[in-house]
Amino acid sequence: MANYIGLDLGGTNIKAGVVDDRGRVRAAESVPTPVDGPSAVIDAMIGLTSVVAESAGIRVDDVACIGVGSPGLLDFERGIIIALPNLPGWADLPLRDHIAQRTGRPVIVENDANAAAFGEFWVGAGRDPSIRHMVMLTLGTGIGTGLIINGRVLHGGFNLGAEGGHVILDPDGPACGCGQRGCLESLASASHLARRAAEVLDAGERSSLQTIHQRGDSITSKDVFEAVEAGDALARRLAEQTATYLAIGCINLCRLLDPQMIVFAGGMALAGDMLFDLVRGAFDRRTWSVAKDRVKIVPARLGNDAGFIGAAAVAWDAHQHGPSG
Amino acid sequence: MANYIGLDLGGTNIKAGVVDDRGRVRAAESVPTPVDGPSAVIDAMIGLTSVVAESAGIRVDDVACIGVGSPGLLDFERGIIIALPNLPGWADLPLRDHIAQRTGRPVIVENDANAAAFGEFWVGAGRDPSIRHMVMLTLGTGIGTGLIINGRVLHGGFNLGAEGGHVILDPDGPACGCGQRGCLESLASASHLARRAAEVLDAGERSSLQTIHQRGDSITSKDVFEAVEAGDALARRLAEQTATYLAIGCINLCRLLDPQMIVFAGGMALAGDMLFDLVRGAFDRRTWSVAKDRVKIVPARLGNDAGFIGAAAVAWDAHQHGPSG
Repeated sequence: MANYIGLDLGGTNIKAGVVDDRGRVRAAESVPTPVDGPSAVIDAMIGLTSVVAESAGIRVDDVACIGVGSPGLLDFERGIIIALPNLPGWADLPLRDHIAQRTGRPVIVENDANAAAFGEFWVGAGRDPSIRHMVMLTLGTGIGTGLIINGRVLHGGFNLGAEGGHVILDPDGPACGCGQRGCLESLASASHLARRAAEVLDAGERSSLQTIHQRGDSITSKDVFEAVEAGDALARRLAEQTATYLAIGCINLCRLLDPQMIVFAGGMALAGDMLFDLVRGAFDRRTWSVAKDRVKIVPARLGNDAGFIGAAAVAWDAHQHGPSG
Repeated sequence: MANYIGLDLGGTNIKAGVVDDRGRVRAAESVPTPVDGPSAVIDAMIGLTSVVAESAGIRVDDVACIGVGSPGLLDFERGIIIALPNLPGWADLPLRDHIAQRTGRPVIVENDANAAAFGEFWVGAGRDPSIRHMVMLTLGTGIGTGLIINGRVLHGGFNLGAEGGHVILDPDGPACGCGQRGCLESLASASHLARRAAEVLDAGERSSLQTIHQRGDSITSKDVFEAVEAGDALARRLAEQTATYLAIGCINLCRLLDPQMIVFAGGMALAGDMLFDLVRGAFDRRTWSVAKDRVKIVPARLGNDAGFIGAAAVAWDAHQHGPSG
């Protein structure tokens, strides 16, 4: 039984887990992400690797491969972090080689959204072996995506693929932080839903959400879905708009990639059945009539462990099949 | 030196070519497509296979693999034509097994748009071996697409992938024949451009195209691009609208799949520099600022032979690597 270590580099915490080759978590640990530059972060990752191995009762030397899930712009082939927007001081950092040299183990670096998607594919929502084509959308402040095509993560020709949050759905839509207009992310992220709610409440529309809004608290996407659940008409209209754009995003994924499963993760996916029912309804109303859609749209299953399990999954995959293209 | 036969099943003609394993055409032949049902069509394909082999000075027995490019809905794994909209009487036809039994050679059946894309990837616009991710858009009555991901054709989970003409770009846009609204095909196909031109001319707008329109001839996308070339302002406005939607389609392909090259084929691609300049301009104005786009948007190079070369390319690929996923 081979073991893998998954490291999930987040803006707040670094999480690590020892995962076996059937995807079972044998130990998990985390530390706050140091704020004083890359070398402190790498030290913390190396330290955490030893700690989590010890918790699992193994030696780092016995680990088959270490996977690292990282945000930012990456060069997958060379294991380099090109830029990390939320952690200053990171530029063209050969993270793979640093960790490999200090642990003596093979290391693979993967985008965090891709890693989380691959974890769900391996042992989460997509664990059924008949599923070979899967997409995961992470619905949070932005919308992250990971694409699994024929069982492998897609990186694209210039390491810039799988940015499904920036597919344009409305060419005259709102400006997105990426410089485009009308991206899925600018129309359907959790933060966009919350902002839209605040706008219409400011405009004086009647809703149970006014209570929260008027006491000066920020409306969240969770508040909106709770109000939908409670029968609030305005909240329902806003949630339906969001769900419609998500559904169109899903239809477009089906037309191009024809996944067997689309998995929603992230904060907004916790809205549960209410969100999924709205998305599936809008999908059915707007999809083509050429053939019956068989894609399943389902919630993620790995929760807070998705990051390190995904990183370990990528390590497992690289160990079995070599780097993904 | 192995040889392959590519068969291109079209609504008007069946074309066949003998192609060697470096993609060179050794012989090509064609016959009109019989209109009296599948068995006459299969007979014609078998006959043409012998004829083209003889033209190339080889025996069918010596062919490594036969590739068939077919329109319609296919089951790639089993080599079955599920439905063929323009050729009635075809339903659940095991085309692969029929041809394999009668020729004694291995046969692979591929969607015609995928086959043409794979031909361009192999020995056409995308022949540079550093290109591993390529998309082809065929701009005609509709918009067909073929996706090459990491050197293989993408079929998707239910054999329904690579329908890029039916990606939704405007959720409130015109109804498409597929049942959706605002598909790329319904906004930017050659036939849509011609129809839009006729509409605005009917509405009395001034343009050099009125001469053609008023003598009762159908306006074509070629007429529109010739009028742009000659400085016609209305034609330019229409062509720019089409190019803008094509550019947004290309941006969305880049965000998801990050191809190194996007190839335009089909009648409208013959408009040449005028079309490509408009599309590249709109792409640059509307794409993100996160990273510089390096994708090349270029015309197809195989012309009228793309169909059978693509079918042979798929045979070559299956012979080297087994079926694509």
